[in-house]
Amino acid sequence: MTLTPAQIARFEEDGYLFLPETFTPREVQVLRRELPELFAQERPEVWRERDGKAVRTVFAAHTFNSAFGRLAAHPRLIEPVMELLDGPVYIHQFKINAKAAFDGDVWQWHQDYGTWARDDLMPAPRAMNVALFLEEVSEFNGPLMFIPKSHKCGVFEAGHDLATTSYPLWTLDRATVTRLVAEGGIVAPKGPAGSLLLFHCNLVHASPGNISPWDRTIVYVSACHVDNHIRQFKRPEWIAHRDFTAIQVLADDCLLALADEDASSGQAAE
Amino acid sequence: MTLTPAQIARFEEDGYLFLPETFTPREVQVLRRELPELFAQERPEVWRERDGKAVRTVFAAHTFNSAFGRLAAHPRLIEPVMELLDGPVYIHQFKINAKAAFDGDVWQWHQDYGTWARDDLMPAPRAMNVALFLEEVSEFNGPLMFIPKSHKCGVFEAGHDLATTSYPLWTLDRATVTRLVAEGGIVAPKGPAGSLLLFHCNLVHASPGNISPWDRTIVYVSACHVDNHIRQFKRPEWIAHRDFTAIQVLADDCLLALADEDASSGQAAE
Repeated sequence: MTLTPAQIARFEEDGYLFLPETFTPREVQVLRRELPELFAQERPEVWRERDGKAVRTVFAAHTFNSAFGRLAAHPRLIEPVMELLDGPVYIHQFKINAKAAFDGDVWQWHQDYGTWARDDLMPAPRAMNVALFLEEVSEFNGPLMFIPKSHKCGVFEAGHDLATTSYPLWTLDRATVTRLVAEGGIVAPKGPAGSLLLFHCNLVHASPGNISPWDRTIVYVSACHVDNHIRQFKRPEWIAHRDFTAIQVLADDCLLALADEDASSGQAAE
Repeated sequence: MTLTPAQIARFEEDGYLFLPETFTPREVQVLRRELPELFAQERPEVWRERDGKAVRTVFAAHTFNSAFGRLAAHPRLIEPVMELLDGPVYIHQFKINAKAAFDGDVWQWHQDYGTWARDDLMPAPRAMNVALFLEEVSEFNGPLMFIPKSHKCGVFEAGHDLATTSYPLWTLDRATVTRLVAEGGIVAPKGPAGSLLLFHCNLVHASPGNISPWDRTIVYVSACHVDNHIRQFKRPEWIAHRDFTAIQVLADDCLLALADEDASSGQAAE
């Protein structure tokens, strides 16, 4: 899979690109069936909401789960990123954001690169996110909201919000958000499980809480050009990785192979 | 204005009816210009969010503000309600729900009649809500979410939620919401300022927080058939009214007249 020139132009203009149904239901299922066990683990990588119960984020699952390990090197995820960043990439951050039915809390307005620059001393915004929907994302279950074109203005001033949610975040002030929305509006890409959303690391985004009875699990892979690796190791290595080795992509059927292995060993694949 | 048989049938089937752009921008403006002064008042009727600052709800504004007083007797608001409830009505509750930009908090899943029956001993669900949008309601600023057809099952068990928001509410358990949504889905009617939303007092509804930079002020008039007035006066009279006099509707231009009066007295109408 490679991006068309029109897709690349749209990414550069709007700051994001939505590719619905890039992974099949069967591939998504290979990942989804891992979630209950992952979410049940008590370890620092599994970050919970303010209630201390519902999972907010699982960090670095690609380092301790083989299905997500394969996803982190999947060509349909990584090749478009290499194309947009023009070279080899490593994984700076890997998150499964649960946004659980009824419990999923807000993510405040922020830029990812703002945090990576401030906390991790990543030299330049030569990094980006690719998000994979593990469930359908609708208007009701806390979709990601983007302010189109907001990636063109560099890094905005931000305050370290330690109070709103369980996870500290460098968030933008209201005047800035209001001004950017007046210029660019808000979009919330929606689609079935398996859809892919690529977005620039300076794109301003947020997501509301989820009060619906539908889970909204999204995997976020933050990839960085290998030359642009972070220079400061203040945050835990499972939040900001220190292995700058270029990703070697796997075969296109690497997730399906896992389903088939399980099927042939008698384990239910679906 | 009267409802068509098809509209009445739809209300009875789905539990709600959406009438976009029922009030003109000029009429809406007559109401909106009152909000800053109303929201600034320090009185029990002005209920704030957990932060103690942003206004969550202004109760009973029709009793101390002349523009909202006229709205409470407006034929375009009250006549369809009299038609659906088959007779004269009085105002049981009158709320301006601010759902302020950035600050507006969630309303949990609930039925209004559940509260009116438990707290106020209203004999039967012969009452309903009519909501008027004072700003555009979009997918981004915390729209009202309905579970269609959920009004047909009577009053569900509920727990008194004193923790989630600043306002105590009898809320439905998650299993019930999940089951009802599996049957009826979720809808969130959206439209410009001036739109009207009528809904059954047993319809299960909720609304998410508002993290957008757009306010989402909605006026809710809860009207009750005069024969069905409440029997218990446990809550303050500005939350559950005790004046059961049938509303006498005003002229259709009663809000515009207010705009014209101000214009002729030299006050800016818009």
